[in-house]
Amino acid sequence: MENFRKESDLLGELNVPIDAYYGVQTQRAIDNFKISGQLLSSYSDFIRGLAFVKKAAAKTNYELGLLDEELYFKIAETCDELIAGQLHDQFPVDMIQGGAGTSINMNANEVIANRVLEKLGKNKGEYEFCSPNDHINLSQSTNDAYPTAIKMGLLQMNVGLVNRLQSIVAAFRAKGEEFQDVIKMGRTQLQDAVPMTLGQEFEAFAANLEEDISKLNSNADLFVEVNMGATAIGTGINAPIGYATLCAKNLTQITGFPIVSAPNLVEATPDTGSYVIYSSAMKRLAVKLSKICNDLRLLSSGPRAGLFEINLPPMQPGSSIMPGKVNPVIPEVVNQVCYKVIGNDLTVTFAAEAGQLQLNVMEPVLSHAIMENINFLCNALDTLRDKCVVGITANKEVCLNMVKHSIGIVTALNPYIGYKQSTQIAKESLETGNSVYNLVLEKGLLSQEKLDEILDPKNMLKPHNK
Amino acid sequence: MENFRKESDLLGELNVPIDAYYGVQTQRAIDNFKISGQLLSSYSDFIRGLAFVKKAAAKTNYELGLLDEELYFKIAETCDELIAGQLHDQFPVDMIQGGAGTSINMNANEVIANRVLEKLGKNKGEYEFCSPNDHINLSQSTNDAYPTAIKMGLLQMNVGLVNRLQSIVAAFRAKGEEFQDVIKMGRTQLQDAVPMTLGQEFEAFAANLEEDISKLNSNADLFVEVNMGATAIGTGINAPIGYATLCAKNLTQITGFPIVSAPNLVEATPDTGSYVIYSSAMKRLAVKLSKICNDLRLLSSGPRAGLFEINLPPMQPGSSIMPGKVNPVIPEVVNQVCYKVIGNDLTVTFAAEAGQLQLNVMEPVLSHAIMENINFLCNALDTLRDKCVVGITANKEVCLNMVKHSIGIVTALNPYIGYKQSTQIAKESLETGNSVYNLVLEKGLLSQEKLDEILDPKNMLKPHNK
Amino acid sequence: MENFRKESDLLGELNVPIDAYYGVQTQRAIDNFKISGQLLSSYSDFIRGLAFVKKAAAKTNYELGLLDEELYFKIAETCDELIAGQLHDQFPVDMIQGGAGTSINMNANEVIANRVLEKLGKNKGEYEFCSPNDHINLSQSTNDAYPTAIKMGLLQMNVGLVNRLQSIVAAFRAKGEEFQDVIKMGRTQLQDAVPMTLGQEFEAFAANLEEDISKLNSNADLFVEVNMGATAIGTGINAPIGYATLCAKNLTQITGFPIVSAPNLVEATPDTGSYVIYSSAMKRLAVKLSKICNDLRLLSSGPRAGLFEINLPPMQPGSSIMPGKVNPVIPEVVNQVCYKVIGNDLTVTFAAEAGQLQLNVMEPVLSHAIMENINFLCNALDTLRDKCVVGITANKEVCLNMVKHSIGIVTALNPYIGYKQSTQIAKESLETGNSVYNLVLEKGLLSQEKLDEILDPKNMLKPHNK
Amino acid sequence: MENFRKESDLLGELNVPIDAYYGVQTQRAIDNFKISGQLLSSYSDFIRGLAFVKKAAAKTNYELGLLDEELYFKIAETCDELIAGQLHDQFPVDMIQGGAGTSINMNANEVIANRVLEKLGKNKGEYEFCSPNDHINLSQSTNDAYPTAIKMGLLQMNVGLVNRLQSIVAAFRAKGEEFQDVIKMGRTQLQDAVPMTLGQEFEAFAANLEEDISKLNSNADLFVEVNMGATAIGTGINAPIGYATLCAKNLTQITGFPIVSAPNLVEATPDTGSYVIYSSAMKRLAVKLSKICNDLRLLSSGPRAGLFEINLPPMQPGSSIMPGKVNPVIPEVVNQVCYKVIGNDLTVTFAAEAGQLQLNVMEPVLSHAIMENINFLCNALDTLRDKCVVGITANKEVCLNMVKHSIGIVTALNPYIGYKQSTQIAKESLETGNSVYNLVLEKGLLSQEKLDEILDPKNMLKPHNK
Repeated sequence: MENFRKESDLLGELNVPIDAYYGVQTQRAIDNFKISGQLLSSYSDFIRGLAFVKKAAAKTNYELGLLDEELYFKIAETCDELIAGQLHDQFPVDMIQGGAGTSINMNANEVIANRVLEKLGKNKGEYEFCSPNDHINLSQSTNDAYPTAIKMGLLQMNVGLVNRLQSIVAAFRAKGEEFQDVIKMGRTQLQDAVPMTLGQEFEAFAANLEEDISKLNSNADLFVEVNMGATAIGTGINAPIGYATLCAKNLTQITGFPIVSAPNLVEATPDTGSYVIYSSAMKRLAVKLSKICNDLRLLSSGPRAGLFEINLPPMQPGSSIMPGKVNPVIPEVVNQVCYKVIGNDLTVTFAAEAGQLQLNVMEPVLSHAIMENINFLCNALDTLRDKCVVGITANKEVCLNMVKHSIGIVTALNPYIGYKQSTQIAKESLETGNSVYNLVLEKGLLSQEKLDEILDPKNMLKPHNK
Repeated sequence: MENFRKESDLLGELNVPIDAYYGVQTQRAIDNFKISGQLLSSYSDFIRGLAFVKKAAAKTNYELGLLDEELYFKIAETCDELIAGQLHDQFPVDMIQGGAGTSINMNANEVIANRVLEKLGKNKGEYEFCSPNDHINLSQSTNDAYPTAIKMGLLQMNVGLVNRLQSIVAAFRAKGEEFQDVIKMGRTQLQDAVPMTLGQEFEAFAANLEEDISKLNSNADLFVEVNMGATAIGTGINAPIGYATLCAKNLTQITGFPIVSAPNLVEATPDTGSYVIYSSAMKRLAVKLSKICNDLRLLSSGPRAGLFEINLPPMQPGSSIMPGKVNPVIPEVVNQVCYKVIGNDLTVTFAAEAGQLQLNVMEPVLSHAIMENINFLCNALDTLRDKCVVGITANKEVCLNMVKHSIGIVTALNPYIGYKQSTQIAKESLETGNSVYNLVLEKGLLSQEKLDEILDPKNMLKPHNK
Repeated sequence: MENFRKESDLLGELNVPIDAYYGVQTQRAIDNFKISGQLLSSYSDFIRGLAFVKKAAAKTNYELGLLDEELYFKIAETCDELIAGQLHDQFPVDMIQGGAGTSINMNANEVIANRVLEKLGKNKGEYEFCSPNDHINLSQSTNDAYPTAIKMGLLQMNVGLVNRLQSIVAAFRAKGEEFQDVIKMGRTQLQDAVPMTLGQEFEAFAANLEEDISKLNSNADLFVEVNMGATAIGTGINAPIGYATLCAKNLTQITGFPIVSAPNLVEATPDTGSYVIYSSAMKRLAVKLSKICNDLRLLSSGPRAGLFEINLPPMQPGSSIMPGKVNPVIPEVVNQVCYKVIGNDLTVTFAAEAGQLQLNVMEPVLSHAIMENINFLCNALDTLRDKCVVGITANKEVCLNMVKHSIGIVTALNPYIGYKQSTQIAKESLETGNSVYNLVLEKGLLSQEKLDEILDPKNMLKPHNK
Repeated sequence: MENFRKESDLLGELNVPIDAYYGVQTQRAIDNFKISGQLLSSYSDFIRGLAFVKKAAAKTNYELGLLDEELYFKIAETCDELIAGQLHDQFPVDMIQGGAGTSINMNANEVIANRVLEKLGKNKGEYEFCSPNDHINLSQSTNDAYPTAIKMGLLQMNVGLVNRLQSIVAAFRAKGEEFQDVIKMGRTQLQDAVPMTLGQEFEAFAANLEEDISKLNSNADLFVEVNMGATAIGTGINAPIGYATLCAKNLTQITGFPIVSAPNLVEATPDTGSYVIYSSAMKRLAVKLSKICNDLRLLSSGPRAGLFEINLPPMQPGSSIMPGKVNPVIPEVVNQVCYKVIGNDLTVTFAAEAGQLQLNVMEPVLSHAIMENINFLCNALDTLRDKCVVGITANKEVCLNMVKHSIGIVTALNPYIGYKQSTQIAKESLETGNSVYNLVLEKGLLSQEKLDEILDPKNMLKPHNK
């Protein structure tokens, strides 16, 4: 048993690995929650969020005279180490746990306390010199420190997601320019409609996704509102006067995000509204991404029995049985990520609804679902851009041929011969196989010159006067 | 005020329309719950379910000596009237209400009591002669009578749904036979795969939906288990010994369904498991239907810039601007019904999870969501069959041409020249435009005779030996 | 057959009721789509939206010289009638239809055309004088007119929803003030935590919901961006130059909302992002409302075997078997509406994801789900405020007694005797039944005077210095 | 570059780690799909499923004369190694990939081929002696081998889940017996209802979950239907006559499950119905589990300001700020797992609906969501049983006291004094605080002897005659 040290808490004594920076309460969490196998240690932005919070809390306590200078300095130093990526392997708590985040908050408290003890030349576990509860958690409870740490984590992660989104918007936009002269049939309800360019189609993908940059950012902005200082239930018990505001100010300075104290802290403590709507914004992105990937798969279908307007870069042999087959594997995997994002959004919805009275105890699964979504989306966006969008090419001839043989171009005749007569032409064309062009001429409805002008696909790509 | 009669309850007096068969508690429900505007009165199978329950309860009470013969006969007669479709306009309660169904149970109790009073030559409201609570609700509570009535309603509605499903399976199957000689390209991942017949594709639609007949029925079978006689919380308080079993027997006789008393009545009272899984079975049907409608829309895409393998019967002009356009409006509406079904299934999930302790108070919205789904699906299936499937025609030449130009047929060469060499042929064919057939001959890999046999699409439609 | 007039379209002739203002295409929709039984006629804000669009389009066409003055005036006059609530019974199209809204757009076109014909002294159906397609639908297609009409409808409906939300916020806030001196135990994870006031709890409900006012409004603001003038697929085919901008300007003037033309009209045509996120905002509201209703039901549980901190106004006898029982029926029905809202949000998600290429054909069910949600939420909010919140009373003694007997107040001792010693006191109190107060005194840890100050619940309601 | 070997495929050459058993296509998957970080290597039952399939396929090929004996023996031997848990680290494919499972199928083909080569004394990559495609994948495609492997994996995993369910049912049942004499108030709608025993409540938990054992098993039974032998699209191309049936027979022998060939193989290939309904059955279990955990948290609420009928075993200090607090962390974590399960079920729904034409390309995320759910549920059930249920104790006095002071017991008077008079007693008792017992006596409604008998809680626990 010499590889362990003994620590104790409300429930009694427990062995903790002798070298562990974490302590008894983290050990209980390890023992209690063997659920998902997905550990806090691999969510580095979240650990950074905890470090931001603990550093800001210590600074505030120090400035309010509750913590002496040496301890404050050591705590701040330790937090900086965590922010720099050190000791992350000391956060072995399962991302899905009970206790409303107490295990994660105590994991941070214990790791910081023991690292401070080390700096003080003390042994791990000698908490009389630096206690996880009385010093690291001073003027805090899980119920303010933990959700604030989540929010600090999400603010950072959102930056990463938005960067990826900007990159893929740029990639679609570049393709929009590249394809600006590729004329093709537009389709509504999967039926031939009227001409457009492939460039318009890809620029629309760019514009569509671009809107979600501000949407994600404006919803992430809700995370800057924190409840530090309102401790257990938002009433501020055990926090000194002025703590909430000062701590927010310190968080701003430490993180660079414009953190503010929530206007109503009793409301802010159990509220999960910001998570719900941010998750919804990701769901919106997933819905759009999935639609775009569906389109890419449709447009590249074929090669002989499909639309075959574009080619996606081949990434792997498509089949273990059909030689030469190449499949749209990248859009496919992105579609699947989107379904996962939508599923996780439902998890968030359930977890948010289940909050009761002064706290929402389901925040662990809620925050995990959001963080998983951000990670998956970041990976999916990188993959889609690098391994698909940038390499897409157009089959210009295929596109043009479909326009030439189309009946949908009859639409352009409406302003000249009316909807009813145009309908007759379209019907006859479909039944006889004779072209719209010929039929109009044969019936003497318009001069050839006029008809040439009207039916030139280039003239159908934007508004024009009669 | 002469158009009203006064009735009273725990909360005091209230005006009820003088001719209404319903009474004070129904009136309170009308006043309290102006929510969805979707009233019990338009859910006739549910009202029938209530009548079945009240008749069976009265019969059981009579047989156990708790109700005199005259009253029993009059109650039974009234229930038969409700079963025959009479007085349904006397059920004005909003389908979404609070109170765990008390309003609906009391609506039935009141209507039956007042109709019995009428038969007895009494005035409405003279409940001393026949009381909604003491006579119609005798040996019952909302907590057993109401869910049992829902289940009786659902058992009937399921029969209607399954009938529709059988009809559409037959319609797809008939098309499967009609199209058995239409050879076309099969597609995986939207890419050309190997040949098949359009008949195989439609028979697969039939087979796919056919599985859901037994799936719906086997899950509906769970509704035969009822908790009559266990009153408020499943302990059987106020029910005489033997009531539960006898009442189930009487329900069997009255409804024709093999009703049984649940083995554990404390469990059965709050349990909504049967609803959850029946709703899931409908969701499964919706997922399948939606997939099939997606396929129908894809296969009929075009006419010139799509797959155009089949034609759906035109149901309306497709566009207010594009003359001659005809859209797949019937599959489109069925897709949308499927999304509604999936949404309602989520409502069921939430409502089921929200049950607490000895009762699930959310059964009104839960049962409404299921009943709405059944109705919508019945309508969608009728519409899809009558207005779409039976009128589908094949574009045989289009289908065959795609097979002829396909590269995917190279797959059939694997057993003869190996996957690697087949891959080379496929690659070269795609790059040069030269056909698979020619390339194999040019390279002298197989004799023309053998090649003709192998590449005949008819030989690719089923397993065969080398 | 003399009660009908004959009309014709691409598919041939059809009988239309002789007095109907709608025409052949609406009649086809009636025949084709017997799905939900929920008709456009009962969605008056949507019909108003259609009228706004048709009026703005006519004005724009007139100003651009495409429509003569008389016809414009008559069309505008007819639209004003629709806006005033007339002729709404002439919109019998099922809210769930195929065709991407063509039936609804044509229903509006036909009703307006026939009403104009009437004003012109012509017979219904004499479309050579005023045609649904060539005049009412001039410079439009379903694909711009229909989504714009939805958005105009939703902008109006959002105003109604936000008004209801403001009212209930005020009601909760008033209770917050009324209960500001009712001291009670706060609870986290359903376990006793630390004291607060019932006023703080109700003010938090107010603050929580209040945030959703701006959230709904800011997301509804997305609906001001429309695609009028981009017709079939966003390229503007058949629309004159300048139409899009001018039409948006006219819509602004007519509706009072600051309507703008979308920056990328090819993108805007199939995009359903605004619906998705507005629906999400309603989902967020539903999640919060449901949480609050859960709390109200918890807090009013009892009367003898529950928390019994508050009384909800009794709305109906609670049980058909348990005399004297009164249930929280209003929060219950609101919970159920919330589950419906969440279910409909999923329908929206599915419908949005299913859009393909240049159009989202699933907009009918998508818009229906959102409009149903707004209506249900409006009703639920009215009901909750009027029939529940305003009548809530507090059981002050019950609340105070729980604080007095609580162990949670030991938390306030942390800053004085440390977490570890406080834990010992708490543990001993729970095991022995001896009060925290006595134990601290017995152990001589603090003076009685200091202890009295620390343990006064009033001092635990906000931050304070040691 | 000496640590790599070169392999090639349709797309050209690629470096593969020299010692890797996997080959070029797996390497492409590693490069292409950096998505979830959750690798096939940690899903051992799935790898076993692949080995079952490959072994059965080889046996069938051998028996049909397509594979020589030596190769068959070596393949079978290798599959047995995989079944025994060896080489699982050679399956590095991300669980979420594009390509409809091709990467996973090829991963298995490559690992087996290279291991066989090793046994043959050849170098890795010398596929002319044993080829992933021509030998290991012989008579198969991804489209039959991959879904069959998933099903074999799920059949095994279901056994594990059902075992856990049986254990927890037993644990609840044991508590039901232990608590059979603890009389308490039953509650409906969170309001006091009528008496029951805590034993009845726990036995109901057992009975409720027990139903899901057969539900899971009957839905898992759908997985025994496989499409081996129907290769690319269900038509059986490249499979010899008789292959499908024989392969199913061999799978039965190898796995011990009664595997059969699907009756319609074109239908079976893209069908995901079995996954959808099995996932739904897990959702049902999650809904029930979540409800039970909600109840456990409610019943253990307090200790002083809650129901406090039961004690959950303390697992960790409950708060970083509130000393002595112990929270219901185990039910809390189980609730969260349930929300995750419900979210994943939605992912399954989306993935299933997205199948197109002859294949469902979304099976990777679909199968991952189901497998994650099984794993999470197994862990949650173990945790709930071991760390919570078995240690629950009852607060017998608390329970009894609530019954004694209850008004709900007035229900038992209905059969004697009628609903209306009972209501009066209840009302008066609530208003005056006088007990039901005293009021009945004071009013002389029943003799004391009769009253004692009726109001004895023990007589309210089951049906009895007047």
